[in-house]
Amino acid sequence: MALSSTNFLLLFLLLFLGSHSPSKAVTLRPPFWKSWWPRRSNERFSTYQYETRYFTQTLDHFSFKQLGSFQQRYLLNQHHWSGALRMGPIFFYCGNEGGIEWFAENTGFMWDIAPRFGAMLVFAEHRYYGQSLPYGSREKAYQNADTLSYLTAEQALADFATLVIDLKRNFSAEACPVILFGGSYGGMLAAWMRMKYPHIAVGALSSSAPILQFQDIVPSQIFYDIVSNDFKRESLSCFKCIKESWNILEHLGQTSEGLANLSRRFNLCWKLNRTQDLADWLSSAYSYLAMVNYPYPANFLMPLPAFPIKEVCKRMDSYPDGTGILDRIFGGISIYYNYTGSVDCFDIRDDPHGMNGWNWQACTEMVMPMSSNEESSMFPPYCFDYDAYQDQCIKEFGVRPRPKWITTEFGGHDLERDLKHFGSNIIFANGLLDPWSGGGVLQNVSDSIISLVTEEGAHHLDLRAATDQDPEWLVDQRESEVEIIRGWISDYYTGKASSF
Amino acid sequence: MALSSTNFLLLFLLLFLGSHSPSKAVTLRPPFWKSWWPRRSNERFSTYQYETRYFTQTLDHFSFKQLGSFQQRYLLNQHHWSGALRMGPIFFYCGNEGGIEWFAENTGFMWDIAPRFGAMLVFAEHRYYGQSLPYGSREKAYQNADTLSYLTAEQALADFATLVIDLKRNFSAEACPVILFGGSYGGMLAAWMRMKYPHIAVGALSSSAPILQFQDIVPSQIFYDIVSNDFKRESLSCFKCIKESWNILEHLGQTSEGLANLSRRFNLCWKLNRTQDLADWLSSAYSYLAMVNYPYPANFLMPLPAFPIKEVCKRMDSYPDGTGILDRIFGGISIYYNYTGSVDCFDIRDDPHGMNGWNWQACTEMVMPMSSNEESSMFPPYCFDYDAYQDQCIKEFGVRPRPKWITTEFGGHDLERDLKHFGSNIIFANGLLDPWSGGGVLQNVSDSIISLVTEEGAHHLDLRAATDQDPEWLVDQRESEVEIIRGWISDYYTGKASSF
Repeated sequence: MALSSTNFLLLFLLLFLGSHSPSKAVTLRPPFWKSWWPRRSNERFSTYQYETRYFTQTLDHFSFKQLGSFQQRYLLNQHHWSGALRMGPIFFYCGNEGGIEWFAENTGFMWDIAPRFGAMLVFAEHRYYGQSLPYGSREKAYQNADTLSYLTAEQALADFATLVIDLKRNFSAEACPVILFGGSYGGMLAAWMRMKYPHIAVGALSSSAPILQFQDIVPSQIFYDIVSNDFKRESLSCFKCIKESWNILEHLGQTSEGLANLSRRFNLCWKLNRTQDLADWLSSAYSYLAMVNYPYPANFLMPLPAFPIKEVCKRMDSYPDGTGILDRIFGGISIYYNYTGSVDCFDIRDDPHGMNGWNWQACTEMVMPMSSNEESSMFPPYCFDYDAYQDQCIKEFGVRPRPKWITTEFGGHDLERDLKHFGSNIIFANGLLDPWSGGGVLQNVSDSIISLVTEEGAHHLDLRAATDQDPEWLVDQRESEVEIIRGWISDYYTGKASSF
Repeated sequence: MALSSTNFLLLFLLLFLGSHSPSKAVTLRPPFWKSWWPRRSNERFSTYQYETRYFTQTLDHFSFKQLGSFQQRYLLNQHHWSGALRMGPIFFYCGNEGGIEWFAENTGFMWDIAPRFGAMLVFAEHRYYGQSLPYGSREKAYQNADTLSYLTAEQALADFATLVIDLKRNFSAEACPVILFGGSYGGMLAAWMRMKYPHIAVGALSSSAPILQFQDIVPSQIFYDIVSNDFKRESLSCFKCIKESWNILEHLGQTSEGLANLSRRFNLCWKLNRTQDLADWLSSAYSYLAMVNYPYPANFLMPLPAFPIKEVCKRMDSYPDGTGILDRIFGGISIYYNYTGSVDCFDIRDDPHGMNGWNWQACTEMVMPMSSNEESSMFPPYCFDYDAYQDQCIKEFGVRPRPKWITTEFGGHDLERDLKHFGSNIIFANGLLDPWSGGGVLQNVSDSIISLVTEEGAHHLDLRAATDQDPEWLVDQRESEVEIIRGWISDYYTGKASSF
């Protein structure tokens, strides 16, 4: 079968490697443009049981323009709920930039622990994704910058707050404590929601949430440095091989004959028009590998072996001396793109449907500067160019980004100081192998704003369902999370009891 | 001279006693409709010196509609500022619903203490008030529900956050601590801003801020009960006289002859058309008297003696036995409306320019239910009727209120629990004579969210300039506020020092 890049499941922010501004030199694309978000909206999941419900949601919470409402979808499971009278907790997942079923399905942790807490489960879909579409349809919601203009994180948080209050009222559950969960962008929302709406939820588990990946808070090269280090720690020769490959690709790509050569070597279904497309395909695979560098075989973005980077490097290093760099690269990358061996040829074409929600968000408030450092990164050097970024957003969406807005609204420049005596009950969970950990909160802020860092963890592995292959540190991490959440709920009950 | 009701300075929320829905029975008007906000925008103040500056502000912070910007006015005084190098604090006043000069002029406390702190003073005007008008003019900004739709507290808070960040950058003052100040609605904004934007300011002095006067958090009759008790504590006969007056007014108002009689007795410039107008004029005076029941002669809303309610009741009780109730009422009310004795006749007509900013806010998010209890209140009984309120808003502005939105966005139903382990560094100052204290925070929430309650205090007296007539408790209250603020700043400096 031909594997299309549009099939890649992508958790979140992923690397939106653009295909605009053609250039002769192979370069690293600023990571915002192309979303490879799964478009499998018709897919049926069957692992977990839930009711699908809809809530009439205000389109614009922050003005009184008479814009009407839309139907926000949420998934509900009350099976283990101990009920309103016993103040059974409500576990609330803050939906990311995609259909909510996929997140419900991939957040097994909540399902696993619900029985231990007697918890109700709610998975709330993020506006403009899945079926939660303003203006009645995806086509209309995504029509232009005007219709898209209410796709913001602040509006999504207000949606969640409004929904929780309504849910509680419907279940007479006003006294029940709410715990927020979220991974990646959803984790950012969970943390921000606990910070902005402390009256709505008593705590938040925010997993792999790069809330510091804005403006100049963390070095812009940190993401690609972490990916590069993930390879370097497995094998210096593997790292060097990738780092040296870009010049060779670029050199070959300068002639039509060279492009044909590359197309054959990489077993592409069609002849390359330009090397950049191949470079994008390769570099995004390296980043994905770093995100899903899980300690057991998994099928999250792709079916992969345990510690896939180790496998990729092992393969690249396994060839006899004298094997060319491109042959090694092809061998390594096949672990990612063709682990099952079922791919006949690779279709690396970009998804032509460029206009998607995350790209809009990246072009408005979610401006995350990313660079690639000449020395420390194995990627082609790239220096974040805000002007070019802005120009592209104006061109594609007719919108000018507000790169300073997220830090104005949510802070971040001195998070520890701001939250040390302010805020409570947040777990920031990060795995250091995950390149998004570079923008994460990696130190405890206070007694109750806790950073759980796992050396061997990747992108919000903790939120996935337990398996019998989980390493001990992962079992321990999840148990810590359970204990901390139990403490929040217990404190809440104690406070309630003393107020009677 | 004829005294027009439009001349009354009104601090904030005041009593918007409507003149819609004519009715035979004298009733209490729901306190939102008519704003008697001072319209003296051309008035020159000279007590304090400041620079007037303008900041290009985003009209809609929470969507990406290309709506452009407007000029937000702010007043600046750097005279005492110890400078960026010494991390001199920035005292930031959160502007209320009116021209900012008036608040700068009436917040002498900030001017008084600035030298002791080496503080810069900033008074930021609230959008849609004073000169900070979207769409270029008051006329255009107030044209209809569409143009008014961005007049919300959340947008105003985002304005303040954006302005602070820009100011700090301009003065290289990123490391300088910001303290928020505000009284009444401005006090609500100061508290909410500290809660929502802890990274922007290290603390807030929120004076006479009824952040709990929403939905069902406090009893809806509390405002008029406090006014009534302010009269009752001075004199039971005074309270009873007012309570009994409404029936007499209503009875007289049923004939044209009776209306003429009332007009003469109350020395009105024109003959009354209906008793309700007179009832509104009287009941609003009682409420204003409770708000400005200050311990020294002041000219805040009107020129008044010290403890004006005591004077009103003394006058009403001073007449010989057998004096009619209406004569007593007229004698008492003249203390409020004609203390200087310069009024020839009273013009009690409503201001015809009904469309003002606060009314819009009251018709959108600032829905504060108010009732008058048959037993405990001296006002005509009135039961808050949300449906009628909503109908009026739809009729006048074409807008439907969102009565649950403020508690969704800012909480309030269980403030103590929500903020006990969340948030810090807020002073809620309330005087118990002030009817708005009924919706205030009257108990300490935590070690650093402090309630300063003064038994003899009225509406944010603490924010006014010190005078040599200040009673000791007021001097003490202000000194407590200074000490607490000093503690916040000192903690901030300690934190800064330890991070180097």
